[in-house]
Amino acid sequence: MVVGTIPEWEDKILLCKRAIEPRVGLWTLPAGFMENRETAQEGALRETFEEANARVELTGLYSLFNLPHISQVYLLFRGRLLDLDFSPGEESLEVALFSEDEIPWDQLAFPIVIETLKLYFEDRKKGDFTLCSATIKRDHDSFVGYETTQHE
Amino acid sequence: MVVGTIPEWEDKILLCKRAIEPRVGLWTLPAGFMENRETAQEGALRETFEEANARVELTGLYSLFNLPHISQVYLLFRGRLLDLDFSPGEESLEVALFSEDEIPWDQLAFPIVIETLKLYFEDRKKGDFTLCSATIKRDHDSFVGYETTQHE
Repeated sequence: MVVGTIPEWEDKILLCKRAIEPRVGLWTLPAGFMENRETAQEGALRETFEEANARVELTGLYSLFNLPHISQVYLLFRGRLLDLDFSPGEESLEVALFSEDEIPWDQLAFPIVIETLKLYFEDRKKGDFTLCSATIKRDHDSFVGYETTQHE
Repeated sequence: MVVGTIPEWEDKILLCKRAIEPRVGLWTLPAGFMENRETAQEGALRETFEEANARVELTGLYSLFNLPHISQVYLLFRGRLLDLDFSPGEESLEVALFSEDEIPWDQLAFPIVIETLKLYFEDRKKGDFTLCSATIKRDHDSFVGYETTQHE
């Protein structure tokens, strides 16, 4: 299972430019595999610190994404940045805050990041962040390469 | 990761009496380990069918429980039973519906089942089932044997 955060600061969120394969040089949310004997929340905080040296306060689970073609489940939590004292961890080339208009949509690393951010900014406009769940399936026949199904 | 359901029928929920170790003869919610290449939702439906021959329609994720001492995360979904045509699967001795008053509180198999059902019936009284998250830690010094911390 993969856990991570959507780190928030005012109207911006923090993204990390990947220093490692796959997708070196593309932007992603801080997230990674859970380790033994930690909780999902602890894993999300650890990954956020490892990748961005950022400290957040979690404010709730935001999304459950299934990636069945690689047998992965992603749990992403919203998190309020406690300060602006962040910097690239070993797995990041760069860490920065982006408002919706500034998101580098064509340079995001993974479909799950694109889909999560779309839902996130829609919810932000509504002022209502209810948990969302979706399944991303690889689809080699389509132009975008994947298909997203939203769940209740 | 373990996935399962809280199968609902009017004011009752469905429990399974375990036919397998551990905790043979005690009651539990239908749940089990996710399999490769399935989604969390598919796994929850599969386990509900395998353990109780019950068909449910999922209505949303209800709880995220951490059990760090055994490196497990539980995701339980609420599910509306589609009919009353359920029966014990191979891993169950008996399957039955219980209202809150009828729950065999002293014969529940696992702390996670006890804690989930407590939260569930509290939320039912409030008429508001928001996602809940908690960590259950083993505590050999206490009488009940575990400690529960609720998260945002």
